[in-house]
Amino acid sequence: MNVAVVGGGATKMGEHWTQSLRDLSTEAGAKALQDAGIEGKDIEALFIGTMSSGRFIGQEHLGALAVDEAGLTPIPATRCEGACASGSLAFRKAYLAIRSGEYDIVMAAGGEKMTDIKGPEAISALMGAGDQEWESSAGLTFSGLYAMMARAYMKRYGLTREELALVPIKNHFHGLKNPLAQFQFPVTVKQVMESALIADPLRLLDCSPITDGAAAVILVSDRVAKRFKNPMWILGSGQASDTLALHNRKSLTEIPSSRIAAEKAYAQAGVSPGKIDVAEVHDCFSIEEILAYEDLGFAERGKGKDLLVNKETYVGGRLPVNTDGGLKLGHPVGATGIKQIIEIMRQLRGDAYTQVKGARIGLAHNIGGSGATALVHIFGTEPGGRHG
Amino acid sequence: MNVAVVGGGATKMGEHWTQSLRDLSTEAGAKALQDAGIEGKDIEALFIGTMSSGRFIGQEHLGALAVDEAGLTPIPATRCEGACASGSLAFRKAYLAIRSGEYDIVMAAGGEKMTDIKGPEAISALMGAGDQEWESSAGLTFSGLYAMMARAYMKRYGLTREELALVPIKNHFHGLKNPLAQFQFPVTVKQVMESALIADPLRLLDCSPITDGAAAVILVSDRVAKRFKNPMWILGSGQASDTLALHNRKSLTEIPSSRIAAEKAYAQAGVSPGKIDVAEVHDCFSIEEILAYEDLGFAERGKGKDLLVNKETYVGGRLPVNTDGGLKLGHPVGATGIKQIIEIMRQLRGDAYTQVKGARIGLAHNIGGSGATALVHIFGTEPGGRHG
Repeated sequence: MNVAVVGGGATKMGEHWTQSLRDLSTEAGAKALQDAGIEGKDIEALFIGTMSSGRFIGQEHLGALAVDEAGLTPIPATRCEGACASGSLAFRKAYLAIRSGEYDIVMAAGGEKMTDIKGPEAISALMGAGDQEWESSAGLTFSGLYAMMARAYMKRYGLTREELALVPIKNHFHGLKNPLAQFQFPVTVKQVMESALIADPLRLLDCSPITDGAAAVILVSDRVAKRFKNPMWILGSGQASDTLALHNRKSLTEIPSSRIAAEKAYAQAGVSPGKIDVAEVHDCFSIEEILAYEDLGFAERGKGKDLLVNKETYVGGRLPVNTDGGLKLGHPVGATGIKQIIEIMRQLRGDAYTQVKGARIGLAHNIGGSGATALVHIFGTEPGGRHG
Repeated sequence: MNVAVVGGGATKMGEHWTQSLRDLSTEAGAKALQDAGIEGKDIEALFIGTMSSGRFIGQEHLGALAVDEAGLTPIPATRCEGACASGSLAFRKAYLAIRSGEYDIVMAAGGEKMTDIKGPEAISALMGAGDQEWESSAGLTFSGLYAMMARAYMKRYGLTREELALVPIKNHFHGLKNPLAQFQFPVTVKQVMESALIADPLRLLDCSPITDGAAAVILVSDRVAKRFKNPMWILGSGQASDTLALHNRKSLTEIPSSRIAAEKAYAQAGVSPGKIDVAEVHDCFSIEEILAYEDLGFAERGKGKDLLVNKETYVGGRLPVNTDGGLKLGHPVGATGIKQIIEIMRQLRGDAYTQVKGARIGLAHNIGGSGATALVHIFGTEPGGRHG
């Protein structure tokens, strides 16, 4: 059975001091319904991705919270958690639930309210995505873990610090027209190089921010898809896992779960990396966008930076990446995977803020922690791929 | 497609001071594999239910933790959370994933390590299952919420405090032969009535304990089920939601989500309540077992206590309930739903610690919070029901 995405919506990414997570998730859900042209009563089930709401706001049971606030009870509501990949995890479970034949119209959402606790507490909560016994308890943070990956990559492949800065420069440039972005200003190599050192070699402008936000999309079976305008079809969906702790990996210069999830998604879709017109990749820290280029087959090992140097991943280039600004311009962890899919949806139907001309096949890549969870989804303007 | 449960295993329920959650989940998983007669490499995906590991042990990303520790990477691993219903939520998602055609052999697990933080902190973490903005922040606890339900029920239907004590008395009696139970001793009406007052009218022996534990089961598609001995078939699966806060309900003397989930499961299974031979119901507090009798159609409204007074829900009675001792003898919140399903599996294949003679159809009922999430599963020794 083919499954399509027929609408989506998100809140502004940022610091929402007057809205709680229930407000944000309801706003995103309402926007998604409006975008799809349906009503809440049409939704048969909800899947929501949230990473650490227990620590951020003292609230678990997010599925119930979301359907309660939206007036959608008694439909089944399920929270899925896979750290920063929680959003796309919820999306994939929604996709599988439709394929099972159980539902025809499902909402997949994600949300996180991260600014209600102090910065150091938020960093501690986020380390719940890593290995508590072997990483967090030793004082490691995600900027530290990705800094080690950046150092290893720079040494192995000769990437310079200035070249690494090309990631946030591109993504800030792409986000200039995105009204939902947390930050809307361009940055230069000089600004990146002079921003505060967070974990050598990563600086402030290499790091995704602490963000409040929510996002939601509507998935439908092919039985009902004809009712909707511009459905975006799921061509492939891949999910993979890896060791929770970075030190148990064989290499610091790749994320194997990204590669495995991508291979599954490409195989299911019957699409090769060269066919991708636009992609959203998980740029939680600058180095990860370059690793993603290579893990997803967009570039050979060690050559990822060439896509930036040659502006191939800019809008107008061969394969525009993070056309909404990526995680750099907002990373409400549970919502991120859904936010990415909304950008691909906008690109494929032609109403993106920064449009890639003629985009017909798109890819979204979302990982949790330092890659212990990875999901890759491939979408097209026409149905395709093998779906059971 | 029909789906069967072909093995399961659990840790002892209790205070595990020398084992962390990764140890407990791996022990349960290994027992489930051994019980099914398969190896880790046969598992294609993992779904794990955990409620509040972020607050209990500073660890989110439980799917990755579990497959990493068990050496099962890179298979897809998904944490599902629906408060105390997290285990059966993971089970249902595993069932739907198999029905989707994506997998043939899947592990559904649950685990919680609750004793690493102090009692009041654990109570606070558990209130993450309620409404943080309207219940937890006002000082409500789950014993308080269920006490209000008990009071309302006693007033409306004339249930006495002594009759309420029949729930823990039965469940402690059932658990006497269960080596995995957290407590193995009988209790009397006098002991219940003299135990510490927690939230009037509920006393200590009315409350499920704080428990460390994990449980896992193996689900398989009908394509591969013939390889296994004694498959237990899923006949029906229902899930429903309700308001997160108790004060938004129309009545305090029922849990509508339990009723709705049960109606779905009965309809799918083509089975009426009278056909159930054995059941596990969510007795987090004594009153909830009586509500469950009525919500699940085992008794008319206000008549639930009769099943206890007449010993109908004892082993040997018409419909034995909580034959392993129920939540009263161990409630590691994320694991509970799976633990219940293991008991039904043992009953249907005839090797339960306290066996119900000739049991052929069983039911498991698991709720989150005060009923904002509810799941009901119906199982049989022969395949049946409608599964897409």
